[in-house]
Amino acid sequence: MAKHAGSVFSVDVTGLETGRGQPAYARICERIRSAIVSGALAPSARLPSSRVLAQDLGVARNTVDWALGQLVADGYIVRRRGAGSFVAASLPERDTRPLAPRRTSPDAAAESERQLPSRLSRRAIALQSYPGHYQSASAIPFTPSLPPIDLFPRAVWNRLLQREATQAGTAYWAYGASNGLPALREAIAAHASAMRATRCSPEQVIVVTSTQQAVELAGKVLADPGDRAWAETPGYQPVQHCLRAAGLQVVPVPVDEHGLDVAEGRRLAPDARLAYVTPAHQYPMGYEMSMERRRALLDWTRQHDAYVIEDDYDGDYRYEGRPIASLQGMDAGGRVIYVGSFNKILFPALRIAYAIVPEPLVAAFVDAKHVADGHTALLMQGVLAAFIHEGHLARHLRKTRTIYDERRLDFLEQARALADVLDFGPATAGMHVAALFKPGLALDDRAVAAECARAGVVVHPLSKYGASERGGLVFGFAGASRAATRCGLEIVAKAIAEMGAKGDGSGA
Amino acid sequence: MAKHAGSVFSVDVTGLETGRGQPAYARICERIRSAIVSGALAPSARLPSSRVLAQDLGVARNTVDWALGQLVADGYIVRRRGAGSFVAASLPERDTRPLAPRRTSPDAAAESERQLPSRLSRRAIALQSYPGHYQSASAIPFTPSLPPIDLFPRAVWNRLLQREATQAGTAYWAYGASNGLPALREAIAAHASAMRATRCSPEQVIVVTSTQQAVELAGKVLADPGDRAWAETPGYQPVQHCLRAAGLQVVPVPVDEHGLDVAEGRRLAPDARLAYVTPAHQYPMGYEMSMERRRALLDWTRQHDAYVIEDDYDGDYRYEGRPIASLQGMDAGGRVIYVGSFNKILFPALRIAYAIVPEPLVAAFVDAKHVADGHTALLMQGVLAAFIHEGHLARHLRKTRTIYDERRLDFLEQARALADVLDFGPATAGMHVAALFKPGLALDDRAVAAECARAGVVVHPLSKYGASERGGLVFGFAGASRAATRCGLEIVAKAIAEMGAKGDGSGA
Repeated sequence: MAKHAGSVFSVDVTGLETGRGQPAYARICERIRSAIVSGALAPSARLPSSRVLAQDLGVARNTVDWALGQLVADGYIVRRRGAGSFVAASLPERDTRPLAPRRTSPDAAAESERQLPSRLSRRAIALQSYPGHYQSASAIPFTPSLPPIDLFPRAVWNRLLQREATQAGTAYWAYGASNGLPALREAIAAHASAMRATRCSPEQVIVVTSTQQAVELAGKVLADPGDRAWAETPGYQPVQHCLRAAGLQVVPVPVDEHGLDVAEGRRLAPDARLAYVTPAHQYPMGYEMSMERRRALLDWTRQHDAYVIEDDYDGDYRYEGRPIASLQGMDAGGRVIYVGSFNKILFPALRIAYAIVPEPLVAAFVDAKHVADGHTALLMQGVLAAFIHEGHLARHLRKTRTIYDERRLDFLEQARALADVLDFGPATAGMHVAALFKPGLALDDRAVAAECARAGVVVHPLSKYGASERGGLVFGFAGASRAATRCGLEIVAKAIAEMGAKGDGSGA
Repeated sequence: MAKHAGSVFSVDVTGLETGRGQPAYARICERIRSAIVSGALAPSARLPSSRVLAQDLGVARNTVDWALGQLVADGYIVRRRGAGSFVAASLPERDTRPLAPRRTSPDAAAESERQLPSRLSRRAIALQSYPGHYQSASAIPFTPSLPPIDLFPRAVWNRLLQREATQAGTAYWAYGASNGLPALREAIAAHASAMRATRCSPEQVIVVTSTQQAVELAGKVLADPGDRAWAETPGYQPVQHCLRAAGLQVVPVPVDEHGLDVAEGRRLAPDARLAYVTPAHQYPMGYEMSMERRRALLDWTRQHDAYVIEDDYDGDYRYEGRPIASLQGMDAGGRVIYVGSFNKILFPALRIAYAIVPEPLVAAFVDAKHVADGHTALLMQGVLAAFIHEGHLARHLRKTRTIYDERRLDFLEQARALADVLDFGPATAGMHVAALFKPGLALDDRAVAAECARAGVVVHPLSKYGASERGGLVFGFAGASRAATRCGLEIVAKAIAEMGAKGDGSGA
């Protein structure tokens, strides 16, 4: 790589050597990114054409195009039609943090070490351990829970968008109701009832921007600062941050293959006000919550006047076995706040999700949503309502269910090559699968994930989701083609082998 | 009116007599609304044509059209092209609250008396006193701070919307940076620097959904639950709820004609972490914060390691006197979080606002925004960036500044007729003016406002904004034509006269 130093960028690339199996596009990506972040490439500067860059760097033009595409998606570069590529005038957020000494460890955990002003609140400091801000837009294997955007019917969406935007009247321009557009609430109630066996009327649906907002609203409405909430461990950390943002104390409760250990929750914090669970497909382990545990959980809520947040983040995708109904649908006591999101099944930039709340809580949730941000933007609500009403959601789910299932089977077949190092968990639903390192391997999963990241492959270390003695990796299979899966799994296998051989697997 | 009972609606209108000067359209509006809310008109039922309705009710067809338009805007009725008008399948939020005995008092304060489930959090109960959820979309005089949507260049906006939506790439479809699109942050930094003399780089701009979200983020980042925050009194109540939602204790600090009384704030709560102020144009009184008070406020922040939230909600509109720079621009200590909103200057359904934060706080604000809802929806950020970059924001501000100014002068001229009952405050900026009842009148401003509302005119009672011995009314002048202003002021004058004559002005 050093031979390219002094190329068009005139950038000192010393220290950027991250080689070892890293694909050429990833190296180029990182070099240009570094040049931008360091200021060597000035904001708004015009880049050479990909043809010139390819010549200069001695790689194929396709490789350069791939790298530039990634940098555009990540916000470092903007393309102006007919004018070429330019350095963005301002950098993506992750590079605009207060400049800290260049980290030598690529571990995301090092994020929390950056320097801080002294007067942040305690909770602001707690919120800083939130995992990665920014997910790549491109279909890099194996980012979990990222819908492949190329499968989304953009033309259909844009046609509806134009139709709704040009409608007469002020419905999409004036203030809206805080609980959401009536047409969208109806569509959501019908969809959730039909697909997830929820029992609800449109009046129980609150339109929000994201699962995170729904969870924070639940935290605010149902608990006061200092109250406790159960959270699955291992579990989805961002949600725990939402509960902390609402001032709650998060109590980690272990999960096993039957889902959340309710008895352990009762022992640890019988007086908790809330429990956060993913009963259909535990995140990240993939377990289904057993009927017995579901009953035990609902019993606890009734006995202790507590509530459950059911995050049904990928409940629309199930490939094997009988359908798993929502917990909300089996709750007769009005104890479940069901949360679903369109950001994970349509496209992330949409920012529309919803909560289905028990009737007596509707007014309080609407109040809390109103105080939080008034209401969710209206036009996109109208477009989404039309998208559902006119059958496009059902069609998109059918199509993606088939494709994800094919990718899942591909993945499982190819993953057999890693059977001597990884124990794969259930993979009958959703968009990801978790795998534990074989006992005795003593690998640091964050180090393995970092090694994979250097080679352009995203796997999440299981330890990122909370306590785990063995460590392991989470693979998103829905976004990766057969070829990408093969290439990605090879890189993972190599990383595991290298980290194991180096024997540096047991420390950070 | 009783002669219309038993008309097409077959609805018992007993008890709906709210006559006394109420315009015909408002009566019809209320009758249809009541029929819908009571269930007499079933959800999704088709309404007779406006021609038939006009005949049936014995009014002009225009009057019926106006009433139906209002009901569409409010969400009670939907229109399907070519098919006619239908009752909405589900009701607007304000009518879907748990059914309480029909309130006899129209006072919004009675809202807080509705029945509640027992297990709401204390803060959820506090959040319920949040003033009205739902602002009418139509240009009823004198709704404060509601931009007249008919002045907005929708065709331009929709053209940009279509252009941006059909752009190649995943920039508007994938996850985005939590601080906002770089192009929008640049545009905002340039706009705020040029128009409001803020001193900031694009990196200090955080794109959010609303002023409310910005304030809650500031509350979370800069204070822990139980910490105290100063809030102007009288002042903008919704923001106080945002601070409460963040777990803060709100300390009301009086304002006078020089703005927030900093000395009194120091006496009441010297250890507060935050102060919320509207220095350019105090809401609702219209005062400008004096230079002396500004300095005193910044001194306090430095001495007590506290921060200021500067809500510059209508800083783009100033008609007389020298321009008033932002407090942020005169702060050398990094103590001001400046908040601006496009929902109030473009259109409310947009849901894009921003905070400009001191550099050392940027990372913590981005973390808090990320935990709150990931990021604000991307496509509209792109459209807004283009709208600003291509000069449309500046053009729209020039146009509306001229029109609002004309309306302001009209209003002030016509308001002279009320000079014997109302003392009008400063009206040199913004979109509203506050007026105190003349000393000795002993009128209940909420009763006067309710009486005006019955006649279809919106004025906010000053007591709604916090303590005020005298009471008074807040008038939005930006949304009312000359004719609407005249008619509206006549209704207000009549309401004041009647409430005064009845002598029921001193009690609720």
